Amino acid sequence: MDALRRLISSERFDSFVTLLVLANAVTLGLETSPVIVARFGMALHVVDQLLLAVFVFEVLAKLVVYRREFFHEPWRVFDLVVIAISIVPATESISILRALRVLRIFRLISSVPSMRRVVGGLFSALPGMGSIFLLLSLVFYVSSVAATKLFAADFPELFGTIAASAFTLFQVMTLEGWTGEVVRPIMALHPLAWVFFIPFIIATSFTVLNLFIGIIVSSMQADHEIPTQVSQDLIVDEQKKILAELGELRRELSALRRERGSAEPEML
Amino acid sequence: MDALRRLISSERFDSFVTLLVLANAVTLGLETSPVIVARFGMALHVVDQLLLAVFVFEVLAKLVVYRREFFHEPWRVFDLVVIAISIVPATESISILRALRVLRIFRLISSVPSMRRVVGGLFSALPGMGSIFLLLSLVFYVSSVAATKLFAADFPELFGTIAASAFTLFQVMTLEGWTGEVVRPIMALHPLAWVFFIPFIIATSFTVLNLFIGIIVSSMQADHEIPTQVSQDLIVDEQKKILAELGELRRELSALRRERGSAEPEML
Amino acid sequence: MDALRRLISSERFDSFVTLLVLANAVTLGLETSPVIVARFGMALHVVDQLLLAVFVFEVLAKLVVYRREFFHEPWRVFDLVVIAISIVPATESISILRALRVLRIFRLISSVPSMRRVVGGLFSALPGMGSIFLLLSLVFYVSSVAATKLFAADFPELFGTIAASAFTLFQVMTLEGWTGEVVRPIMALHPLAWVFFIPFIIATSFTVLNLFIGIIVSSMQADHEIPTQVSQDLIVDEQKKILAELGELRRELSALRRERGSAEPEML
Amino acid sequence: MDALRRLISSERFDSFVTLLVLANAVTLGLETSPVIVARFGMALHVVDQLLLAVFVFEVLAKLVVYRREFFHEPWRVFDLVVIAISIVPATESISILRALRVLRIFRLISSVPSMRRVVGGLFSALPGMGSIFLLLSLVFYVSSVAATKLFAADFPELFGTIAASAFTLFQVMTLEGWTGEVVRPIMALHPLAWVFFIPFIIATSFTVLNLFIGIIVSSMQADHEIPTQVSQDLIVDEQKKILAELGELRRELSALRRERGSAEPEML
Repeated sequence: MDALRRLISSERFDSFVTLLVLANAVTLGLETSPVIVARFGMALHVVDQLLLAVFVFEVLAKLVVYRREFFHEPWRVFDLVVIAISIVPATESISILRALRVLRIFRLISSVPSMRRVVGGLFSALPGMGSIFLLLSLVFYVSSVAATKLFAADFPELFGTIAASAFTLFQVMTLEGWTGEVVRPIMALHPLAWVFFIPFIIATSFTVLNLFIGIIVSSMQADHEIPTQVSQDLIVDEQKKILAELGELRRELSALRRERGSAEPEML
Repeated sequence: MDALRRLISSERFDSFVTLLVLANAVTLGLETSPVIVARFGMALHVVDQLLLAVFVFEVLAKLVVYRREFFHEPWRVFDLVVIAISIVPATESISILRALRVLRIFRLISSVPSMRRVVGGLFSALPGMGSIFLLLSLVFYVSSVAATKLFAADFPELFGTIAASAFTLFQVMTLEGWTGEVVRPIMALHPLAWVFFIPFIIATSFTVLNLFIGIIVSSMQADHEIPTQVSQDLIVDEQKKILAELGELRRELSALRRERGSAEPEML
Repeated sequence: MDALRRLISSERFDSFVTLLVLANAVTLGLETSPVIVARFGMALHVVDQLLLAVFVFEVLAKLVVYRREFFHEPWRVFDLVVIAISIVPATESISILRALRVLRIFRLISSVPSMRRVVGGLFSALPGMGSIFLLLSLVFYVSSVAATKLFAADFPELFGTIAASAFTLFQVMTLEGWTGEVVRPIMALHPLAWVFFIPFIIATSFTVLNLFIGIIVSSMQADHEIPTQVSQDLIVDEQKKILAELGELRRELSALRRERGSAEPEML
Repeated sequence: MDALRRLISSERFDSFVTLLVLANAVTLGLETSPVIVARFGMALHVVDQLLLAVFVFEVLAKLVVYRREFFHEPWRVFDLVVIAISIVPATESISILRALRVLRIFRLISSVPSMRRVVGGLFSALPGMGSIFLLLSLVFYVSSVAATKLFAADFPELFGTIAASAFTLFQVMTLEGWTGEVVRPIMALHPLAWVFFIPFIIATSFTVLNLFIGIIVSSMQADHEIPTQVSQDLIVDEQKKILAELGELRRELSALRRERGSAEPEML
């Protein structure tokens, strides 16, 4: 048990796992080539199973050693989820299962500290953006329902269901083919359709820009790269201390002068 | 009357209305599915009418209780407008009326305080951007008139009227299909058309970027997230106070020294 | 002469000219409608000529009154250029001449102070961006020459001349149809063409973003909206003054103490 | 040798080389016109060879004069690489060789100090962005492998190999034709394909935005245009010095008072 703990918390073991993840990234890439699979498919499969065995062992070892504490560190949970997805049995089709195995490569993020910091920085900014994301979802839901009611009959492919409408509106929001593929055909039937789409484009692109920049600014402030109001308040607080100190000094000086004033007469 | 006031200003009533808006969002979504409408259409209609009745009651109750004050809080006015649009009689076509009812879901914005703050933040930044928005409108109007005069004869679909030109120029500004659908066909006839479109693209995309970033920066400053010049001026002002205080101290000290100087000789 | 000076520098005359520009904007817009031109074409033409006469009179009056000083205020020069373009005789074709007359509406920018400020802010940021704009031009020129040499033979429409290449590369930079219309067809012949286009896209979109944000940041700093390094240096300078003042105080206090020290013994 | 050193470090020689680079930029541009090549092709070729000879002489001279020091200045290495590429013999095809010669024009960057500063600013920001670039590469690699596994069979042109998938995903990331050309055709076969593409779009566009803005912010901070945390810490440090100085003053004043206190009794 103690040997296990020492093993999994050693830097050498971390580097070893990182190397294995890199190796797995290579084998997963090689698997996409039909030529290579035809010649080395068996070997690639064996290597993949061996690597998976090591990853499962590592996660289980950490679970056994850290127990409840295991779940306090989000990156360990991330590893657990990624490995769990990798060994999940084939439920739908073999190709989708294979694709999910690829997620294992993301373990590189949890292995390399600088990557962990970058991703952590991006994610730590998300909670503060909750309400703007909710607003965007609301705009999307209302627009999807409205678009389905308005255009489902004439454009079943683009706006047949709420899901189809949401996808088409996402396309419109990214501005990809919004006129040629979506709005011009609709305006041929409903000339006022721009009343719906142009405000939608302006509102969503503005909100998304706001969302993105908001996340970026907060992730920068988290890195202390941009001065925050806080540090300015700190400066002002320090200045108040300085002023208080000066007031104290002056009072002391006045006291000294008064004492002198009361002392001198006796001296005369 | 007093009971009514207590009711509409209670947090429980607010939560209840929020729940009803959420329920209405679901029923409005369900209405878009032909299968569900075929089976539960009547029930959905009844629920919708009941929910509308509650919303109308709530707005009327607030109107009765607050009277003139009702219009001091913009979000109450927002609710009134949204509900008024919902009960407006069918004027054009049944499908457009149905779409307008969907706007009711936006009442979630006025119900949830954090959403209210986000939207308020976005809107509070708008007035400061008035002149840049005017500039953009001016560029659009002048370009639309010019484009109509130049290209209406050859491209009636894209530039037939000022409205059509404005729409096409909006498309060009979003960069969607600006070459394939708009500028290349025109340049086949008028090889110098790029002299019109490329400056237009540069000017508008620059102005829009400026507009967006301007709004975002002011909405951030409103949230006190980015230090403003004001707080720096405050620091400098405090420093001036400190310097003044120090000057005072020094004068006092000099006075003390002079007094001593005039006292000492008498002591000798 | 004095009456003329008083006239052209009166606020009432300014408002009057602004109103006339607005009126001209309306008549220029109306001229784009064939129906209206068919019925009121003559009247519109007469009004347009009258308005132009007033504008010409205004500019000439200012030229006469201010003489050399006229050219010190850039907005007066802007008005002069706009009016000069308006009365230039038809050189190429009647439709292009008509389009140039539309530029007159831009006089609204010089008439409305807030618009003048916004545009001035945008332009004042341009000089600082000179070298990055030069860099972008250089990248464009080199890429255009290279693209012409590489693809002119196979794609004469897209890359036949340097000008055609520059236009196509501008299209690629805006990301509009860069794969479907430009790069995929080329890659069908030259599979390595992405080696040219993907670095081009990354380099230019990065440079353009840099250019735009640079202009915006400097125009904001010009408006004193974002604290600059300068004001921080000011704070530090003030702090140095405070420290110097404190040092002086301490020296004075020490002097007082020493004097006392030399005075006391005599007192004993 | 000394004369050579004086020559290559003289400003006049620098301006002369800059002029030659500009001349070469013109001749390289002229070479793209078949008409001009037909008439002046020989002359252009001779001029080009002469200019190249001067550039080779310049680089060799600097190599001889500075020796090892030559490689300490990155811009000299840049010049060396650009010239070396220019004289590399034709390996693949004459047209690609010609295109590489165009790179010589980039020597303008190393010749003009302001351009050197701009490019240096952009590059100096790159190292700090290493980990976010790695993250983006990882996302691209994993997505390419997954997309190849999922869609290679049905869409061999878009996702046949990892390289093809990476190119198509780059297209999706730029949002160019992502629905019309890529996702809608796939969703016709695999209706859930949006589960793959929409998170990919959101993740990559967010990461790229983050990458770009990160580079820009750090290049601005390098130019000292935006106040950094560092200068705020400097202010706070100075404040601590002020407070320490004030404490010292107060102690001194107290000492003075105590001395007086001990002196006075003896005076009485």
